[in-house]
Amino acid sequence: MNENQIQFMREAIRLSVESVKNGGGPFGAIIVKNGEIIARGNNQVTLNHDPTAHAEVVAIREACQHLGHFQLEDCDLYTSCEPCPMCMGAIYWSRPNRVFFGNTKSDAAKIGFDDQFIYKELQTPFLERKIPMIQLLNGEAIEAFQLWDKKEDKVSY
Amino acid sequence: MNENQIQFMREAIRLSVESVKNGGGPFGAIIVKNGEIIARGNNQVTLNHDPTAHAEVVAIREACQHLGHFQLEDCDLYTSCEPCPMCMGAIYWSRPNRVFFGNTKSDAAKIGFDDQFIYKELQTPFLERKIPMIQLLNGEAIEAFQLWDKKEDKVSY
Repeated sequence: MNENQIQFMREAIRLSVESVKNGGGPFGAIIVKNGEIIARGNNQVTLNHDPTAHAEVVAIREACQHLGHFQLEDCDLYTSCEPCPMCMGAIYWSRPNRVFFGNTKSDAAKIGFDDQFIYKELQTPFLERKIPMIQLLNGEAIEAFQLWDKKEDKVSY
Repeated sequence: MNENQIQFMREAIRLSVESVKNGGGPFGAIIVKNGEIIARGNNQVTLNHDPTAHAEVVAIREACQHLGHFQLEDCDLYTSCEPCPMCMGAIYWSRPNRVFFGNTKSDAAKIGFDDQFIYKELQTPFLERKIPMIQLLNGEAIEAFQLWDKKEDKVSY
């Protein structure tokens, strides 16, 4: 690790501490491109009635608005805690170069944020999950995929 | 399945087809509470430069704004395709009662949306992933968690 990386992680940590003081969840994140912070995020789930507003998702959305693109090319994400499954998904869809994190998911579990429950559910058969998953009308749903497959001017992502 | 469920799934499918025609990805979703559609979403990743704007996330965010709460109590989610890992995370954080889906992730993989890659990466050791995960300053990052743990007026989620 180098001094810049340490300073960037300290900024993500500062946001996480400020977030608790302002009534948000204890998480902060930043996106860095070419040595500059292009977006900051903190957890705003309860403040903004948005269950998807984890620090990483907030920072990723803001960075993409800043770049005018749906990909974080040549960017690094610094987050005060190892990302949850939702944020890991958002990271893979936005494709930054690297992710730096502070606390682990085991630290998070100790204060009541249990990602492990979600990982376990994802391994459970559809109908036995706490939130059951029920398939319907797959014969009809395929129409959009066929249209997409044939579309010549589509923007892939 | 009953007739209402079929009609709700048809609406999610209609949104997915409309989405392709309007330049979005081939996915649609709705949220239903007490027999009424309270939110609609379609994939807006490329249109809105937002890698998190999958149909399910768009619908979940809109439903929560409508309800003024970060939880989807007594709601059902209908989505034209089995949700990706990001959307599955968003579903578990927002906690609807049930999820109905049309196409499978295997159907999605056939047209280039490979969730399996993300699931595989999540099982890979941190530093060997395509997007490496690097831990930094965990001794400092824990401060926000300690503050949260001690905070008496926090809103848990």
